[in-house]
Amino acid sequence: MTTEPVLIAGEWRESDTTGTFQAENPATKEALAPVFPVSSWLDCDQALEAAAAAFVEMQDLDVAQIAEFLERFATLIEENSDDLVSLAHAETGLPVSPRLADVELPRTTGQLRQAAAAARSQNWTQPVIDSANNIRSCYGSIGPVCVFGPNNFPFAFGSASGGDFAAAIAAGNPVIAKANSSHPGTTKRFAELALEAAQATDVPNSIVQLIYRSNHDIGQQMITDQRVGATGYTGARGAGLALKKAADGAGKPIYLELSSVNPVVFLSAVLEEKGEELAKEFSGSCLMGTGQFCTNPGMVVLIQSDEAEKFIDTVASEFENAATGTLLSSSVERSLHESHGVLVGAGAEVCCGTGDGKENPGYCVANTLLRVDGETFLRDPETMQTEAFGNSSLIVVADSLEQVQQILKTLEGNLTGSIYSATSGDDDEAYRVIAPILRKKVGRLLNDKMPTGVAVSPAMNHGGPYPATGHPGFTAVGIPGSLLRFAMLQSYDNVRPERLPAILRDGYQGSAQRLIDGVWT
Amino acid sequence: MTTEPVLIAGEWRESDTTGTFQAENPATKEALAPVFPVSSWLDCDQALEAAAAAFVEMQDLDVAQIAEFLERFATLIEENSDDLVSLAHAETGLPVSPRLADVELPRTTGQLRQAAAAARSQNWTQPVIDSANNIRSCYGSIGPVCVFGPNNFPFAFGSASGGDFAAAIAAGNPVIAKANSSHPGTTKRFAELALEAAQATDVPNSIVQLIYRSNHDIGQQMITDQRVGATGYTGARGAGLALKKAADGAGKPIYLELSSVNPVVFLSAVLEEKGEELAKEFSGSCLMGTGQFCTNPGMVVLIQSDEAEKFIDTVASEFENAATGTLLSSSVERSLHESHGVLVGAGAEVCCGTGDGKENPGYCVANTLLRVDGETFLRDPETMQTEAFGNSSLIVVADSLEQVQQILKTLEGNLTGSIYSATSGDDDEAYRVIAPILRKKVGRLLNDKMPTGVAVSPAMNHGGPYPATGHPGFTAVGIPGSLLRFAMLQSYDNVRPERLPAILRDGYQGSAQRLIDGVWT
Repeated sequence: MTTEPVLIAGEWRESDTTGTFQAENPATKEALAPVFPVSSWLDCDQALEAAAAAFVEMQDLDVAQIAEFLERFATLIEENSDDLVSLAHAETGLPVSPRLADVELPRTTGQLRQAAAAARSQNWTQPVIDSANNIRSCYGSIGPVCVFGPNNFPFAFGSASGGDFAAAIAAGNPVIAKANSSHPGTTKRFAELALEAAQATDVPNSIVQLIYRSNHDIGQQMITDQRVGATGYTGARGAGLALKKAADGAGKPIYLELSSVNPVVFLSAVLEEKGEELAKEFSGSCLMGTGQFCTNPGMVVLIQSDEAEKFIDTVASEFENAATGTLLSSSVERSLHESHGVLVGAGAEVCCGTGDGKENPGYCVANTLLRVDGETFLRDPETMQTEAFGNSSLIVVADSLEQVQQILKTLEGNLTGSIYSATSGDDDEAYRVIAPILRKKVGRLLNDKMPTGVAVSPAMNHGGPYPATGHPGFTAVGIPGSLLRFAMLQSYDNVRPERLPAILRDGYQGSAQRLIDGVWT
Repeated sequence: MTTEPVLIAGEWRESDTTGTFQAENPATKEALAPVFPVSSWLDCDQALEAAAAAFVEMQDLDVAQIAEFLERFATLIEENSDDLVSLAHAETGLPVSPRLADVELPRTTGQLRQAAAAARSQNWTQPVIDSANNIRSCYGSIGPVCVFGPNNFPFAFGSASGGDFAAAIAAGNPVIAKANSSHPGTTKRFAELALEAAQATDVPNSIVQLIYRSNHDIGQQMITDQRVGATGYTGARGAGLALKKAADGAGKPIYLELSSVNPVVFLSAVLEEKGEELAKEFSGSCLMGTGQFCTNPGMVVLIQSDEAEKFIDTVASEFENAATGTLLSSSVERSLHESHGVLVGAGAEVCCGTGDGKENPGYCVANTLLRVDGETFLRDPETMQTEAFGNSSLIVVADSLEQVQQILKTLEGNLTGSIYSATSGDDDEAYRVIAPILRKKVGRLLNDKMPTGVAVSPAMNHGGPYPATGHPGFTAVGIPGSLLRFAMLQSYDNVRPERLPAILRDGYQGSAQRLIDGVWT
């Protein structure tokens, strides 16, 4: 059987395959025609070899060339947007518009252009010069980066197009992209355009390799290989932690974006102030994209009251009246049912949902709202934080502000944490008590706002303490910060002037801010 | 038997001990009188509880108070320098002067004052403001930090006085210090002064806890405890990697400074130019402090020639004529003999040394110079990179520049790498070939300079790729950079103005540089 080719060393090659797979249209449950290979170690080894060679070549490139590559790639994506949107729609079931065409695609090209600007300015390298000691330092490229993309953002987090890809390349590293198995065709199209951009801008053709799938052992062998610099992974916790264990054991940096329930606390006075409005806001955020966002609000904490009950009733009613969205795959559907089973098994009650989705021929689960009292939650907080990825949320009803504090103290690391409080000031004392607890549990703390949107901003932290990610000091979104994941710190001690990187030389003419003898210049 | 007390929650308490140990004077091999406890889990648990409480309190401290604490501590160290120097001299055998009194002690107080300045200015937090999206971010404290200090710097890297301690506290975290077993008395004296400084400056008394030793299981339990923010470890590779494995498994950041052979390459023309001078410079650097520096040049690479042979002869003669220094402990002596056995077993030849040290009643090994040809090195490069911590070095004689490249490509991650080249320019082409290889293997690249000195400079990188450290993006020396190890990235999204940290507010009046809407202000 002929399978789709892999991209290695600038060539679309027949894979050395150990099996095949096909993507599926989750809206129809029909298999899509193209047959993709499961790569052997030989494919991975050749990809590593090509990436290692590209890395050496990239050290000598003018940074402007890397910027031009990223920009050309962005333009090619725009020129081929209909094609990309249609492929991704078929493979993911995500709506063509506004989601794919008008939100995610512009976000993706915007990220690539921001990454290009960072590569060009080199501001991300944080140059420091100590003239008295003649010691100079900056961040520099780390080596070939393996990128494992998630199922839920085929463009903006795609392994050959998204944030990790853009950051790795802007920091001077080639990428080995591992397609998400649910949208291999979309990823292949991006890799084709990336190769075209590489050829047009005269960067090494091996700046991006693409494989679609391998077994887990081979994936682990790849990311621990001495030719690898670092790995970026976005996806489910189990697979991510297995990769983390392997990478950690080999001393290879790995940046993970794993599960997160993104707790939202509604304090008492704000529920009195505008409970119904908040119920609608919350419902919209929770069901958007069928809840398949890393920052979906999967857990709500509130204190028992009549307003709290009204809030729950309104959300349940919104959930029941809303259409049932399509899930990304059969495994997302299965996993969502499993999570509901775990939560109900631990004592959560069903307000609505958990059953099959209605009037939707694709993969789906009914919009689900669960509730649990604080005491039951605290009996097994770890199980109660089981992520139910999709159109689902768990409301924890505490008996007091003290219990809210206890609940927050048991939280695992999360990407986000939100607190809604009254404009009257009546919640301010409660805020002061709980905010410091939540602050240290999350990468991004929000006020009066749902966590779902993740702006591509230099001030964004799309990260957080373990197990939301593998390290609380790095962000996956936001440029130039996200580049630092794929960098090493490099100090130059007494190195002769002409041998220094341009950005560390005395006569440097560029625009990057430099810390020279304690003064930003 | 009465043992020395541990410091927990601002009190010198009797330890819940599972055993005892005494330090030894390595210059006389005599046990020192004080008896120290081996702590049970109960001690560690109480230390964690106290540190967790201190961490909560520290969130509300004015940063100026933390700065005052560090400064007061530095002053107290100076006021008690005779005492500290005499304790450390007895426990480590390191010379009183200049080493302890005139170099390491001022370095230690200098670090504390630089850390204080960083805490006061908050420049290390790298505030970023995106006004349009009202998203703001900065680095913030991470939680209680466990510090494991090494044997070779009782002051400057001491667990209750050194770089990790200063960085952790300046970043807003309390410390649980684990004394190095070879100098518990010195560490205790530092902890006494730190407590005195805490009491005088009104910071939480639990800002520092001290235990002296525990078994390995309990150490691992401590650093993986959910109350811990991060761990800093400087020391031997085996113990460090065991801690790393435990911390990684729990998702707790750990920063390690492990072994490093610090390769030094002498190119051909520079050996012609001044081979004898370089042999003396190298010998001095290698034997300084009996070679017990993390950045000791433990491996030399050169290309075979008459000048190379003269260089080796001169070094051997310098080594033989130099006094035999005292090693820090019996285990350093044993380990150095073992490493020599491993290297000789793998094919290294003895130029001089490997036997017992002469005319030194303390722990010592004869100044040792080994050599090996490039082909033998390349047969088992991993074994050939066995660190021989102490007054010892291995010279690798390559048959060509090509072989030098092959050798450098097999190198593990190191803290430093040095290249000496001729002033005539005759080595420049060779430099261009090898420098890019070495650059990616080391944290600090040097020209024409020995790596031994580690300036406390903002441009320093005392770090490097694994296994020199656990992560190539961080430095253990150099302020403010070293603080970032003990920090998490914190984003504030739509948070009300009065609830923001001062440094992220619109009306901020401090001196820290902020990136506001893309412009450094």
